[in-house]
Amino acid sequence: MSRTSGGDASGIASFYDPRSIAIIGASPNAKKPGGKPLAALLKRGFAGNVFPVNPSYDEIAGLTCYPTILDVPGNVELAIISVPAKFVPDLLEQCGVKGVKAVVIFTAGFSEVGGDGEALQQTLRDLACEHGFRILGPNCLGIINVSNSVFASFAHIVELEAVPGSLGLVTQSGAFGAMIYAEATLAGVGCSSFASVGNEADSEFSDFVDYLLDDPETTLIGGYLEGARNGDELRRVAERGLALAKPIVVLKVGRSTSGARAAASHTGSLAGDDQIYDAFFRQTGIVRVDTLAELTAFAIVHRGGGDFRGRRVGIVSGSGGYGVMVADKCESLGLSVPELGPATRAELAQSLPEFGSGRNPIDLTAQAAMDPSMLGNCLRALAADPEIDILLAHAFFQEPHGKALAKELIEICRSTSKAVVIMSHPRPKPGLEVECFERLTQAGIPILSDGLEAAKAVAKLAWYQEKAARAAARDEGSQPPVVAAAEAIAATIRTSEGLSEHRSKQVLQGYGIPITREALATSANAAVEFARELGYPVALKVQSPEIAHKTEADGIRLNLDSDDAVRDAYDEILRNAERFAPRADVHGVLVQEMLADGVEVIIGATKDPVFGHAMMFGLGGIFVEALRDVSFRIAPLSRTDAEEMIDEIAGHRVLRGLRGQPAADREAIIDVLLRVSRLVGDHGDEIEELDINPLLVFPKGAKAVDALIRR
Amino acid sequence: MSRTSGGDASGIASFYDPRSIAIIGASPNAKKPGGKPLAALLKRGFAGNVFPVNPSYDEIAGLTCYPTILDVPGNVELAIISVPAKFVPDLLEQCGVKGVKAVVIFTAGFSEVGGDGEALQQTLRDLACEHGFRILGPNCLGIINVSNSVFASFAHIVELEAVPGSLGLVTQSGAFGAMIYAEATLAGVGCSSFASVGNEADSEFSDFVDYLLDDPETTLIGGYLEGARNGDELRRVAERGLALAKPIVVLKVGRSTSGARAAASHTGSLAGDDQIYDAFFRQTGIVRVDTLAELTAFAIVHRGGGDFRGRRVGIVSGSGGYGVMVADKCESLGLSVPELGPATRAELAQSLPEFGSGRNPIDLTAQAAMDPSMLGNCLRALAADPEIDILLAHAFFQEPHGKALAKELIEICRSTSKAVVIMSHPRPKPGLEVECFERLTQAGIPILSDGLEAAKAVAKLAWYQEKAARAAARDEGSQPPVVAAAEAIAATIRTSEGLSEHRSKQVLQGYGIPITREALATSANAAVEFARELGYPVALKVQSPEIAHKTEADGIRLNLDSDDAVRDAYDEILRNAERFAPRADVHGVLVQEMLADGVEVIIGATKDPVFGHAMMFGLGGIFVEALRDVSFRIAPLSRTDAEEMIDEIAGHRVLRGLRGQPAADREAIIDVLLRVSRLVGDHGDEIEELDINPLLVFPKGAKAVDALIRR
Repeated sequence: MSRTSGGDASGIASFYDPRSIAIIGASPNAKKPGGKPLAALLKRGFAGNVFPVNPSYDEIAGLTCYPTILDVPGNVELAIISVPAKFVPDLLEQCGVKGVKAVVIFTAGFSEVGGDGEALQQTLRDLACEHGFRILGPNCLGIINVSNSVFASFAHIVELEAVPGSLGLVTQSGAFGAMIYAEATLAGVGCSSFASVGNEADSEFSDFVDYLLDDPETTLIGGYLEGARNGDELRRVAERGLALAKPIVVLKVGRSTSGARAAASHTGSLAGDDQIYDAFFRQTGIVRVDTLAELTAFAIVHRGGGDFRGRRVGIVSGSGGYGVMVADKCESLGLSVPELGPATRAELAQSLPEFGSGRNPIDLTAQAAMDPSMLGNCLRALAADPEIDILLAHAFFQEPHGKALAKELIEICRSTSKAVVIMSHPRPKPGLEVECFERLTQAGIPILSDGLEAAKAVAKLAWYQEKAARAAARDEGSQPPVVAAAEAIAATIRTSEGLSEHRSKQVLQGYGIPITREALATSANAAVEFARELGYPVALKVQSPEIAHKTEADGIRLNLDSDDAVRDAYDEILRNAERFAPRADVHGVLVQEMLADGVEVIIGATKDPVFGHAMMFGLGGIFVEALRDVSFRIAPLSRTDAEEMIDEIAGHRVLRGLRGQPAADREAIIDVLLRVSRLVGDHGDEIEELDINPLLVFPKGAKAVDALIRR
Repeated sequence: MSRTSGGDASGIASFYDPRSIAIIGASPNAKKPGGKPLAALLKRGFAGNVFPVNPSYDEIAGLTCYPTILDVPGNVELAIISVPAKFVPDLLEQCGVKGVKAVVIFTAGFSEVGGDGEALQQTLRDLACEHGFRILGPNCLGIINVSNSVFASFAHIVELEAVPGSLGLVTQSGAFGAMIYAEATLAGVGCSSFASVGNEADSEFSDFVDYLLDDPETTLIGGYLEGARNGDELRRVAERGLALAKPIVVLKVGRSTSGARAAASHTGSLAGDDQIYDAFFRQTGIVRVDTLAELTAFAIVHRGGGDFRGRRVGIVSGSGGYGVMVADKCESLGLSVPELGPATRAELAQSLPEFGSGRNPIDLTAQAAMDPSMLGNCLRALAADPEIDILLAHAFFQEPHGKALAKELIEICRSTSKAVVIMSHPRPKPGLEVECFERLTQAGIPILSDGLEAAKAVAKLAWYQEKAARAAARDEGSQPPVVAAAEAIAATIRTSEGLSEHRSKQVLQGYGIPITREALATSANAAVEFARELGYPVALKVQSPEIAHKTEADGIRLNLDSDDAVRDAYDEILRNAERFAPRADVHGVLVQEMLADGVEVIIGATKDPVFGHAMMFGLGGIFVEALRDVSFRIAPLSRTDAEEMIDEIAGHRVLRGLRGQPAADREAIIDVLLRVSRLVGDHGDEIEELDINPLLVFPKGAKAVDALIRR
């Protein structure tokens, strides 16, 4: 019985919630990988049975130690293996015989070392398939589930005092994942669980995320990702998360070239192009963070449960400069910091000293430290302002008014339905500052010691909540219809010689994508005839699957306006093609209408090894070449995806019409994007790459002027 | 005797190093503004005389209290005034009579409240001029100089335990400046001084920076800036700092629109456009930071004294993911993380376990915690690699090897001339971690708890050091020569009716800027004659100072290729102009050569209220309109400035030639930039705005096709 890699979350529960655990290679030394989980399970009071397995000991930590797992009395649901690599297959075989459901393999020395290690890892997978158990690892730090005291890990974090919390972590790097866990814990963000997936011989990143989506202890999933094994599965899981509105926050490294290099070598994982990942995250609602601090700040702000979708922020600070700094950050992240209306300003004028600014950000001046009611009154005024959605308040908790201020803030938060986030002093000092910090945290109010991280988290949450709301409202029944018969199209694509421009465009036309009026001529006379039918002027272009860049072959003539010109051009083009590529299979010369001016755009699709077809959109010509100003999404696209692709490019203003020119037909672009998405979805296996370059977009409608499909 | 505002650093020493201090409005309550500096001066052991002044007391804190400053026996060098605004002028008058050299005015209620406050502030300035003393403030937190215990401030930071250090702070916001001081102190970056400049009635931001450039206690100047009062003066000071290689690091808020709004209202300061400020900072070598953390990280890394100019970073980490994260950041900031050469890899292979990655970033894996020699050996290998300039090492200081590792790192840093920066765990824990952290700090090794901030600081230092080196090497003797007589040019500019395209271009030509061959025709016959002289085809353009946008008036005809076409076009253009602007003063029609294809660029200059003429460079047409892809520098430009302007735009690749086109003549662009810079320098008072749009740039040479100077 074989099982395909990944995408199978069955049996994952046995990692997170086993009734019994055996540790193969158990050690009495709690510093060793085989000793650490044993000590932790006992110390934290895991409620199920724990069985040490090691032929060298009769007893460890007061428990009977068994020579092999087969000697253990009763059932074992989860086994941990911590022995050298060469012994692992035999022990795994025993686990199978014993009927174990899930095996955590700490041991390194498998696919990450290449060669023999690869083969050894394949053996592990085969055994898992054969016996029907799941493997976590090898080369991993194991798994932790705080709520039921499963500490099946040798990471140092099993020794950390647990902070109650609901952040579930899944990580492809054990060491870095442990660092995230530790940092989150220190920042007061408790983790509900931790899974280090190692080499992903069997179960993989997405499986654990999938499980956590249904875990009631987990309200937020944090991931450290180097490269997805299975893009489709990650997409399915991410979309399910979005539908549940349970955010998946991912720290994905490898933005730069050297980063990508190292990440690829690190766990033998195939890192895709970062631009594709970034598009994928934006498309599927995965919140991408670049730092540990961003992740913990997001968790803190998310925990508050506020609604950030309005994006209009009111900021109050005791220092004008600090307020402006936070306002700058907010606006650079797409939040707005609007001027306050006259009613609110009148209200504020009663609380603010004459030299304070009544604008937004509101500057309380140094007076705030002496009069804690100022901050409270300002926040109440902002909470009452219908033009403000989010309150960002900078609070100092100092003697003598610190406690009163904390109490006031808690009351305000309870009395308003608006999202409130408190920014405290950097590095709160032990004593009153820390005490007030914790009091607010306990009251469920997001409080952070870094105002800029607060702004970032608010912006990310606003984005996420909007995305989730759109996903919930999305109408999926609007796929564009196929026009021609699917079979004929498939046959055209499968043509053995490869596709010329003309054939490529026939395929596009079959999917309802408008193309230039054109005909393929195989004689000068036919060319003239077609030209007369199309109406002058016309363009002539050489057609051959071997000549992808027709300009290089000098195989294009534009604006031909007479029979003679067409005849001359026909002969000339064929001569040039012959000289450029003597052995090329030339199908003929395409006679094509000349079009009115429009905006040139590029629409393309390319096969990504992880995610399938990635679609690209950009403005044509110099924009792509000089600025690489393009956007990506993974097919299939929703209408929203297509809209986002258009809006995301830096030069999107060009489409709205510059210098008094009319706007380009946005709907026509969306339509072509969706039709191409459908095309690569239907014939994905056959299409390696597809380019419409350019698609000419008019005030009304669009036409593919040139196109190429590569198999 | 009058003195111009700002730009006069004389007398500033009396703020930082007074021999005696009087406190007018002294209070026995150390919580009050009049009590805090008195208590601090006494507690910190200020060596000079301290005189409390207040008619309500006979004695404060054991010192005789005088009714007025005139009653104080002996000299008073520095006076602090802490009384309500209305009393300030009289007391200031007394200071003048007493011969005080410098006065700190804490009191608020001056220009920042507008109206009467403005007038009152003018009174203070007049008194300063009359008596020849300097004022700091009003509406400020005062001044601190740690080395000689001058604590002439009522900021809460006077109570902080001082950390020895050499960061001199100057701030336009008292509260925010105090926050920077406190944060720097907590981060282990000691401050040498603190000056809160308040409303800058007399002395200003630049004056204090200027003083600190010569202060031996200060190696790094940190500033919080909302808006410069005097751009020329700040430029002079910044350039002096660059020549001394003493960095000036500025936190400047107001990047966003709401930010700019609040900053403008905050201290009545005139905030210039942020894009201009940003260009100014880059031009003058001011290091801009956006957060407190960036400022302290820069201070820590700068303190190490390393040379970062090579930009090639070797990264070592115990977690692959962390290393990649830092590598990503480095590359995104313009540092390089190169592959390591075979010799280094061979060296590394001896220290790394088989499953570690030998690439850069180097991943020590979790083994590093058990074997501290691994990190040491890797660093030695990197230090010996001639292809690596900077070592970034991630170190965990844990039992049992933490101390040994710290010792090892100190030895390595002493044995290499390369820059080394250590990244430790986030939030080092009290005990071993903090102890090792401090030990490295004491040994002069930069150590930070945030690897991303470390990368940012390294990149900023690399930029700064390169900038300082270029400034030192700069040849200032290469101004382009003026071709025509300056007097004639001045007359042309001063023409009362305003400048048409033709006149504007005559001015440019006078400065040696190549323009299209052209002549102004006032009859159809003359137009034909000129066209024949220029050679067909030609362009015709209406010329009138009142018609700035000739296209809107339909006042342009291109590619005219016969006498008849020119004659018709001439009449048509004049008719269109008459219809468009019946009362416009039409000078005639410009007959102009048509040019070969080239790259369109825009070169402009606009008068900024703070900095004088800001020059702009960008690609023409759609690039500017759709992408706002332009760069700025303040005139006068150096050659380096001109080069940076060209390289800074996102579309700079267009100039190198796309699609096999030849590159545009870079030297020709530089030449025009420098000539325009010279022009606005010579005739700055007359020129409000200047635009060459487009300058057509050819593979060899360039020509101004259209231009307009506005007075």
